[in-house]
Amino acid sequence: MIQLTIIGSGNVAQHLIKAFSTSSLVEIVQAFSRKKEALIHLLEPEKIVTEFSALKKSDLYIISVSDNAIPEVSSQLPFENQLVVHTSGTTSIDVLDSKNRKGVFYPLQTFSKNKAVDFSVIPICLESENEEDYEILETAAKSISNAVFSISSEQRKALHVAAVFVNNFTNHLYQIGQEICEEHQVPFEVLRPLIQETAEKIKTLDPVDAQTGPAKRHDSVTTNAHLDFITNENQKNIYKILTQSIQDNGKKL
Amino acid sequence: MIQLTIIGSGNVAQHLIKAFSTSSLVEIVQAFSRKKEALIHLLEPEKIVTEFSALKKSDLYIISVSDNAIPEVSSQLPFENQLVVHTSGTTSIDVLDSKNRKGVFYPLQTFSKNKAVDFSVIPICLESENEEDYEILETAAKSISNAVFSISSEQRKALHVAAVFVNNFTNHLYQIGQEICEEHQVPFEVLRPLIQETAEKIKTLDPVDAQTGPAKRHDSVTTNAHLDFITNENQKNIYKILTQSIQDNGKKL
Repeated sequence: MIQLTIIGSGNVAQHLIKAFSTSSLVEIVQAFSRKKEALIHLLEPEKIVTEFSALKKSDLYIISVSDNAIPEVSSQLPFENQLVVHTSGTTSIDVLDSKNRKGVFYPLQTFSKNKAVDFSVIPICLESENEEDYEILETAAKSISNAVFSISSEQRKALHVAAVFVNNFTNHLYQIGQEICEEHQVPFEVLRPLIQETAEKIKTLDPVDAQTGPAKRHDSVTTNAHLDFITNENQKNIYKILTQSIQDNGKKL
Repeated sequence: MIQLTIIGSGNVAQHLIKAFSTSSLVEIVQAFSRKKEALIHLLEPEKIVTEFSALKKSDLYIISVSDNAIPEVSSQLPFENQLVVHTSGTTSIDVLDSKNRKGVFYPLQTFSKNKAVDFSVIPICLESENEEDYEILETAAKSISNAVFSISSEQRKALHVAAVFVNNFTNHLYQIGQEICEEHQVPFEVLRPLIQETAEKIKTLDPVDAQTGPAKRHDSVTTNAHLDFITNENQKNIYKILTQSIQDNGKKL
């Protein structure tokens, strides 16, 4: 049984607490939050501490706070030579204070407050300084997820950038699609199945093989008609750049 | 029972033939293809015709050919005052020859040869010149899909542009994500669940409410670190423009 402490009370911290609460291999010893109320719906009050000095012994401390607070929080921990990890996609393992054994426990997912997540399909990217610590992280990660990967800080950086493209930017394209629908009184409902199918295809096809549309076909009659149709300058600009990028990629293949 | 003829043998035509073959309300009378071999795996040979003059009487003729061939094909049909529709997202109802009753039967989906589709969830956008013809189209459409919409030529234009954003461009962002992974020896597998989750969220959330990430947070430390990390100028450019667009949208709200 791995004794675990969560430090933080944000979105990721809360989802981790929920997920580990159902694990039979992990026991949540405590969680740290500046405000007790933030976690009271998830844990018994006596397990929530508001001072670092109240932290008990654990096998693993997971710091899940905003990226820029990680160095400060890790340096304030009142113990040494324990396994302390952060959950950030963009932050190197090295920002953690060296008085403890360092690691990373990065769940690669987008967590919204309003939407439940199935942790079992969320990839968790692990990094540690030594093999024994990796085993602790792996046991904890595998107890909540079926997709656990060993990923170095450098690889994690690449992954986070790639995730911005496939998640943040993709979602923004959905938003533009919705805006175009609303501008022309078309129900966005009509587009929702296409959004699902676009993602669904990527389960089995490589993106380059799934690419369709006027840009890919070099159908300039259609792409020019679309550019004439779009009135918003920002949307027009995005249309041009992504059309060009699809066509330039096609040339390379 | 609606008597139906399909004119064309491309991706969409073939998917329509497959879908209507399972419908109890529609009978495929014939299909037209320049080359008989193109459809021989889907229909009895005697139902496949290679000359317009061999076309029999039907309640509905669906022209599913490339956009620029629609006017020519519709003018070559050797009959008058029949219901003739096309399946194009970008083409007005008016390109059809006026000797027949015109309409549109546009399945809004991306059809790959290598991937089976479940037609029941594919939105079909219908347009006709009169109510009786609309009823024929609606009966045929509802026999293969649960998502049938009345959409004018103008609305269809908007829909097609929006579809380019949520499908073609989104898929291209997946491709960029994969390229970044490959460049840094990270398995693209790690990102696939995130792609699914990003689409999944849109079943219940509006895109603007689902938006997360450094751009949305105006976290310029992270966005600048990402821009430093990206070496490909095209990727860098797309990153900048979409980050700016997310932030400008945020301001409007």
